[in-house]
Amino acid sequence: MHGPTAILLLSCPDQLGLVAKLANFVFANGGNIIHADHHRDFEAGLFLSRIEWQVEGFNLRREVIGPAFEGIAKPLDADWQVHFSDERPRVAIWVTKQDHCLLDLLWRQQAGELNVEIPLILSNHEKLRPVAEQFGIAFEHVPITKETKQAQEEKQLELLAQYEIDLVVLAKYMQVLSDRFLAQFPNVINIHHSFLPAFAGAKPYHRAYARGVKLIGATAHFATPDLDEGPIIEQDVKRVTHRDDVDDLIRKGKDLERMVLAQAVRLHMQRRVLAYRNRTVVFA
Amino acid sequence: MHGPTAILLLSCPDQLGLVAKLANFVFANGGNIIHADHHRDFEAGLFLSRIEWQVEGFNLRREVIGPAFEGIAKPLDADWQVHFSDERPRVAIWVTKQDHCLLDLLWRQQAGELNVEIPLILSNHEKLRPVAEQFGIAFEHVPITKETKQAQEEKQLELLAQYEIDLVVLAKYMQVLSDRFLAQFPNVINIHHSFLPAFAGAKPYHRAYARGVKLIGATAHFATPDLDEGPIIEQDVKRVTHRDDVDDLIRKGKDLERMVLAQAVRLHMQRRVLAYRNRTVVFA
Amino acid sequence: MHGPTAILLLSCPDQLGLVAKLANFVFANGGNIIHADHHRDFEAGLFLSRIEWQVEGFNLRREVIGPAFEGIAKPLDADWQVHFSDERPRVAIWVTKQDHCLLDLLWRQQAGELNVEIPLILSNHEKLRPVAEQFGIAFEHVPITKETKQAQEEKQLELLAQYEIDLVVLAKYMQVLSDRFLAQFPNVINIHHSFLPAFAGAKPYHRAYARGVKLIGATAHFATPDLDEGPIIEQDVKRVTHRDDVDDLIRKGKDLERMVLAQAVRLHMQRRVLAYRNRTVVFA
Amino acid sequence: MHGPTAILLLSCPDQLGLVAKLANFVFANGGNIIHADHHRDFEAGLFLSRIEWQVEGFNLRREVIGPAFEGIAKPLDADWQVHFSDERPRVAIWVTKQDHCLLDLLWRQQAGELNVEIPLILSNHEKLRPVAEQFGIAFEHVPITKETKQAQEEKQLELLAQYEIDLVVLAKYMQVLSDRFLAQFPNVINIHHSFLPAFAGAKPYHRAYARGVKLIGATAHFATPDLDEGPIIEQDVKRVTHRDDVDDLIRKGKDLERMVLAQAVRLHMQRRVLAYRNRTVVFA
Repeated sequence: MHGPTAILLLSCPDQLGLVAKLANFVFANGGNIIHADHHRDFEAGLFLSRIEWQVEGFNLRREVIGPAFEGIAKPLDADWQVHFSDERPRVAIWVTKQDHCLLDLLWRQQAGELNVEIPLILSNHEKLRPVAEQFGIAFEHVPITKETKQAQEEKQLELLAQYEIDLVVLAKYMQVLSDRFLAQFPNVINIHHSFLPAFAGAKPYHRAYARGVKLIGATAHFATPDLDEGPIIEQDVKRVTHRDDVDDLIRKGKDLERMVLAQAVRLHMQRRVLAYRNRTVVFA
Repeated sequence: MHGPTAILLLSCPDQLGLVAKLANFVFANGGNIIHADHHRDFEAGLFLSRIEWQVEGFNLRREVIGPAFEGIAKPLDADWQVHFSDERPRVAIWVTKQDHCLLDLLWRQQAGELNVEIPLILSNHEKLRPVAEQFGIAFEHVPITKETKQAQEEKQLELLAQYEIDLVVLAKYMQVLSDRFLAQFPNVINIHHSFLPAFAGAKPYHRAYARGVKLIGATAHFATPDLDEGPIIEQDVKRVTHRDDVDDLIRKGKDLERMVLAQAVRLHMQRRVLAYRNRTVVFA
Repeated sequence: MHGPTAILLLSCPDQLGLVAKLANFVFANGGNIIHADHHRDFEAGLFLSRIEWQVEGFNLRREVIGPAFEGIAKPLDADWQVHFSDERPRVAIWVTKQDHCLLDLLWRQQAGELNVEIPLILSNHEKLRPVAEQFGIAFEHVPITKETKQAQEEKQLELLAQYEIDLVVLAKYMQVLSDRFLAQFPNVINIHHSFLPAFAGAKPYHRAYARGVKLIGATAHFATPDLDEGPIIEQDVKRVTHRDDVDDLIRKGKDLERMVLAQAVRLHMQRRVLAYRNRTVVFA
Repeated sequence: MHGPTAILLLSCPDQLGLVAKLANFVFANGGNIIHADHHRDFEAGLFLSRIEWQVEGFNLRREVIGPAFEGIAKPLDADWQVHFSDERPRVAIWVTKQDHCLLDLLWRQQAGELNVEIPLILSNHEKLRPVAEQFGIAFEHVPITKETKQAQEEKQLELLAQYEIDLVVLAKYMQVLSDRFLAQFPNVINIHHSFLPAFAGAKPYHRAYARGVKLIGATAHFATPDLDEGPIIEQDVKRVTHRDDVDDLIRKGKDLERMVLAQAVRLHMQRRVLAYRNRTVVFA
């Protein structure tokens, strides 16, 4: 519809004229803005913005955009990133034994919904290797025990470097990532099988059943060292009744998990998500 | 459509032939069943049932139904209740300062949705007295302080007796009921302004905002001595975004609260709710 | 949080630099933008925009903003409006006999959710006069028959002029407005009790029941001469089952209707809705 | 949890004592009922029922249950079916070129969610043969032109006989089945990509976009000679905004379609669906 685009994500302390400054930068260089959305967090005193414009007709070459924009961003004390819609980020999907989120992501990638490359599936078990083979994707088996965890995380980091991974998606990967790991590779999205903050931690469906809730949920969030406490990207719920036992909750939850995770990955890969102070702005 | 009905709610240890026993009791006495629903909780080893039949044509007079049924219930070791659809339970609505749940219940009662009498509004503040006056309902002001709480609960119990109240609906009543109170008057439905068990306790919207959730919720439950831990009758959620501040959450939450509370009261007053072991069966 | 604001709604043929032009107009005059959202309809070749900025600190007096902006708007061939958040539009609510949408709007107005004045309730029946009296609002009874319709519409238009009405909300007003009327007073929001375009026209719940649908809906839209064909502002649905007869659909639908209508009125009164070519952009 | 079960689905003219008659039949033969649900359609004067009991301990051999029950059913003028939960119905999935519903059903079947065999995929195109091969399922290519339609339907019927198919699922099969075909093989579930009755017929997403709706839907229904008019089993909707163009509607719709179709197939294969007079009872 409109060819490749450049996307600017920015946050900075609030002040007068920010929308004009950003729009002028694009316009002055001949850019045609196709999406511009802004948010003010009055409590935090922050301005957050997403601007997307067509690459075609823009007078700055891609590699010059960043340096050119730095002149504007610096005095604003801004955090910012520029992405291009035709650059396909490289995603590693991490799994344990359940395949539903994995299959859903792979199918959406094939259907063109996600705009990513998926060069690597990593697991602490061998079980899902056949899925990787079927889709022609490398599969790395990195088993974890309490004793080997630190060493194996080193190996995981090496694999992420080797496969040039931009984003890790924990698609029902049933291991906690250490602070150390996340400090070195912070770009991680996790799906938790509950409506956080309800039922953080282990066995959420069993606990939801025990509590007698009438809705179950799923939450996609950025992973942080505090387990299940990272910035939430997307959540959804599904109705359950007294007829649903734990197995039904698990089955119904699978649909939630794959929908919510796919939506979060899609939004993030379209560069619509800005995380700050343990929350997100989603420019959808 | 079908005149007044008798409704039997029953729970008992599971065994063979329970549906037949109940249906035969009704049929043998000439009753026409218009709703029959049953649930087996395999984990708890319990059978739970709701049967509703037309009073017209039933050969047992109302006051005889209970004694007659006791002959069947006793050997089953059953808990049971019989209600009649044309008996309108007497409900007291308790409030503090917010009027949205109160107004919604009063409007539904007037519109014929709830099948109850509402002879009493009780509050620890004077603020909503004009609403009571406008609807021609008695208003009792029972202020509570830490020091007076026990004495005032005595007064509340007296008022419930005086007004012959069957059910108390806490429609944003911002006080905790004591164990002692609930031991004497256990039939209480509360609305909590969160998706329990998330954000139990005080200021759920503020905490939901602080956590950065993407959905807010409301929960109607039977009150028990464990605050916000009683059997859940109904829950629902509403989507929020980064544009919603705490005031927006509160505003959106009001709609949730009144819908969820009204639905719970309606279901309970239609005798569709059976609470057991901190959960509910809702025969909807 | 941020004092009164000015809101600019604009649509014009798409061209380069529009976001910059608008933002610069605000910035050049010292305005602090608190919301800016834009949409491009590529198919229609249109740019649509909403910009909101604080009045405090803005260098143009209110009455000068329009003339000043005209200099920018003219060459763009733009349709535009400027509103102020502290100007409360005057709304007339039109009803027939059902009170649920009316009461809901009146409650919300009292609760400060709607930011409007409601000086007039108009009806073709006397039934809801007591509601108007209770809320201290003028009630005008304008009965309609086939023969009197044209004359009575004249009277309606006079009343709208007399009460200085900005927006008519048809809150279950069961009469069709003529083309002639709408040509003279086009600012009308209607609630239709179905998920349009399903069940346009009369008796939607009866037809929904007859069709055996599993969800019912409600639709708020701007009224146009083509009945139930105007630009849709908001829609929602609710689940129904085989247990729900027509009366249950009507009862459940009432909740839908009042939620959907209130949301549409709120969005419109916050100047978040731009209608064009039989559709709307909702800058929410 | 409870071993194989027998399931009785029955509809008959309403009369006294039906629940008792059915429950007694099960109880008299030693059966343990694990689910019993009934519905009265007062308007149609019909009683509809589903009873499920454990095969273990039941005194009648499977092949005798039918003949034994006929003695009860005949005087009631009842339509009835008996199924067994461990008999896996044989399903043929029909597709054209889109794979999302097909893949979703195949995954669910592999995951044990559907309790069916899927021995056959039939298509009027070759495109999805690789999917069939990957899952080890027979693929029959039956191209259709206006001229060949009647002959090819003969071939389709032969294939259904040859593969002993119990149920055809039209998983985005973009051809209309003739009255003749449906007369010979009436057990067909279709997914229509709209919220019926809105946008029946061709190109529903394009028409939904053109109308400017705020929700899109999907409908699973039994196929009947009247296109898109058959009894509805399940429907659901998803929110869309002005930012969504037709491609977005199609993408979002895919998730709806696969969820709604899978749910309908699951409910039907659990023998929870009774169709009558162009509507369904879903004993869920």
